[in-house]
Amino acid sequence: MRTGPVHNFGAGPCALADEVIENTTKAVQNFKNGMSLLEISHRSKDWMAIMDETVALFKEVLNIPAGYSVLFLGGGASLQFLMVAMNLLEKKAAYLDTGVWASKAIKEAKAFGEVQVVASSKDKNYTYIPEYKIPEDVDYFHITTNNTIYGSEIKKDIDCPVKLVADMSSDILSRPVDVSKYALIYAGAQKNCGCAGVTIVIVKDEVLGHVSRQLPSMMDYKIHIANGSMYNTPPVISIYTINQTLKWVKKMGGVEAIHKMNEEKAKILYEEIDRNKLFRGTVEKDSRSIMNICFVMNDEYKALEEEFYNFATKQGMIGIKGHRSVGGFRASCYNAVRIESVKALVSCMQEFEKLH
Amino acid sequence: MRTGPVHNFGAGPCALADEVIENTTKAVQNFKNGMSLLEISHRSKDWMAIMDETVALFKEVLNIPAGYSVLFLGGGASLQFLMVAMNLLEKKAAYLDTGVWASKAIKEAKAFGEVQVVASSKDKNYTYIPEYKIPEDVDYFHITTNNTIYGSEIKKDIDCPVKLVADMSSDILSRPVDVSKYALIYAGAQKNCGCAGVTIVIVKDEVLGHVSRQLPSMMDYKIHIANGSMYNTPPVISIYTINQTLKWVKKMGGVEAIHKMNEEKAKILYEEIDRNKLFRGTVEKDSRSIMNICFVMNDEYKALEEEFYNFATKQGMIGIKGHRSVGGFRASCYNAVRIESVKALVSCMQEFEKLH
Repeated sequence: MRTGPVHNFGAGPCALADEVIENTTKAVQNFKNGMSLLEISHRSKDWMAIMDETVALFKEVLNIPAGYSVLFLGGGASLQFLMVAMNLLEKKAAYLDTGVWASKAIKEAKAFGEVQVVASSKDKNYTYIPEYKIPEDVDYFHITTNNTIYGSEIKKDIDCPVKLVADMSSDILSRPVDVSKYALIYAGAQKNCGCAGVTIVIVKDEVLGHVSRQLPSMMDYKIHIANGSMYNTPPVISIYTINQTLKWVKKMGGVEAIHKMNEEKAKILYEEIDRNKLFRGTVEKDSRSIMNICFVMNDEYKALEEEFYNFATKQGMIGIKGHRSVGGFRASCYNAVRIESVKALVSCMQEFEKLH
Repeated sequence: MRTGPVHNFGAGPCALADEVIENTTKAVQNFKNGMSLLEISHRSKDWMAIMDETVALFKEVLNIPAGYSVLFLGGGASLQFLMVAMNLLEKKAAYLDTGVWASKAIKEAKAFGEVQVVASSKDKNYTYIPEYKIPEDVDYFHITTNNTIYGSEIKKDIDCPVKLVADMSSDILSRPVDVSKYALIYAGAQKNCGCAGVTIVIVKDEVLGHVSRQLPSMMDYKIHIANGSMYNTPPVISIYTINQTLKWVKKMGGVEAIHKMNEEKAKILYEEIDRNKLFRGTVEKDSRSIMNICFVMNDEYKALEEEFYNFATKQGMIGIKGHRSVGGFRASCYNAVRIESVKALVSCMQEFEKLH
């Protein structure tokens, strides 16, 4: 276990488990026969075994039913905004606007068909998950399950009369998911799955191949599936960190156990935010994320914001500045953030309260 | 210096310099304050400094003139087949067909306009660089400077009456390049620049913004330029290996010195191929690549191919099997492959000759 001086609350890239760091370090130094993981051929038997294992681990950990494929692609979740629409949008799609990333997904989809925004919480700076009704005449309904910037989250697998597509970039692997309710799930790895540079796509095979447009090869999920995510050279080391993270998740007891820990961490921090006279949460209670916990100073203490930031930073809190569009503070409590780190932040808040 | 038992002649991912491996290992273990390179925010000052430095190093090492931007993008060079056409092809483009990767670039471009293939060496399994005439009524002319699979290479910066676009995935940084002759150069990092997961794009700013189509954000070079390759989360660790590789290239004396070493390595190996009664090169002499050196057994010794493969493998030669579409052997002698490795392979060939 690392005993570094810092508590990493970064919004992503972010804290990873010690053994993910340790094992990746070893693999970068010497993966096989003195060769680094950075040097081995993606077509070598040793690497192919890691690819196959990583797919199998993902299916096991998220309990993915038969009929789904798991892909590891380059380009980031932002590329998925485009790929989802190109592969699934024939006439009309419905989107829920719960933040900047959701609205970027909406913008990209509009180039490929009609987009109906069923609801938006933009009116209150995305501080809640809005009520909505899913239309039944659309090709799919797109949600962002967790809104990293604002700290809101759809914490349940919703029932959906049409194909359900979810950007789970910042809460995948944080809880059990009923994958059978989704047509497609995508997620940038750099929160709960590993390091930056790879995006996970979980797609129900039968939803593909129904649009009339000609797809460029690199945009075509079917081509990536047919080639086992190796149509082009995959981001080897980033995939390796997913492999190691999944092994760690299993060792921790799987996503059920991870979920309990995440709920416990969130409870401790939200209770302090609600109790401490200096702070208040920015998100409506029902919509609060257990991953990204956003809070600001109460109006009468607003002037102390920078002082608290410096105070907390000196005590080793890293990455707690809120996104510029929200202000204040954000403690991202991803899977690998330890309860000890959350408690250290709570202590920090309590000490600071005593000073004022 | 690593003294491992292997000589890595892999076609990519492939051998990297010792200090790239050493320094990346250290950064994965502890980049700053006990945090791994895999964990640090791409918006942190420490990472931004690495990004800026990497761009500056690339400009310095390749002597890139003012008016060009350097991008580090996810998705692989295969995504560039698409992006190049989307950003530059208004009516018609010319392509030179020198291999499978060139023909994939051609296939993707056809979705966006007329594509004129000015010449192809497919008739002889891409064993030579064909003669061609560049039309002047096209938006750009696309070449693949080095053909990894077949071992042919365009070793000079050609004069081009229209915008010149080059896929330099497997020979970038192997020699000095007159960048001013190119409108756009792209290259997957995983040969001479670093590890897999990132693609370098060097683009003349003034060639952008002239097509009439609406570009998806992630496909728009101008958006990536405006955001300093951080429109979305960049592939942090892959970019770090570019940073380290560029420092190593500088230390070795720059691309001029590297080029001399590459020529020396290629000379030693081609001389042995031409001398040894068992082997022959597959590529016409004028078109021979100094990066990927392809050879087969002479017809009368064809039956010995597997035996030589096993013989060489036992002596630590890695990745020397030729691509299935060529057969025989391929020794990729990228920048980080040492002359000692090439000499070891030559010894292997000589010993094997004596046995037969």
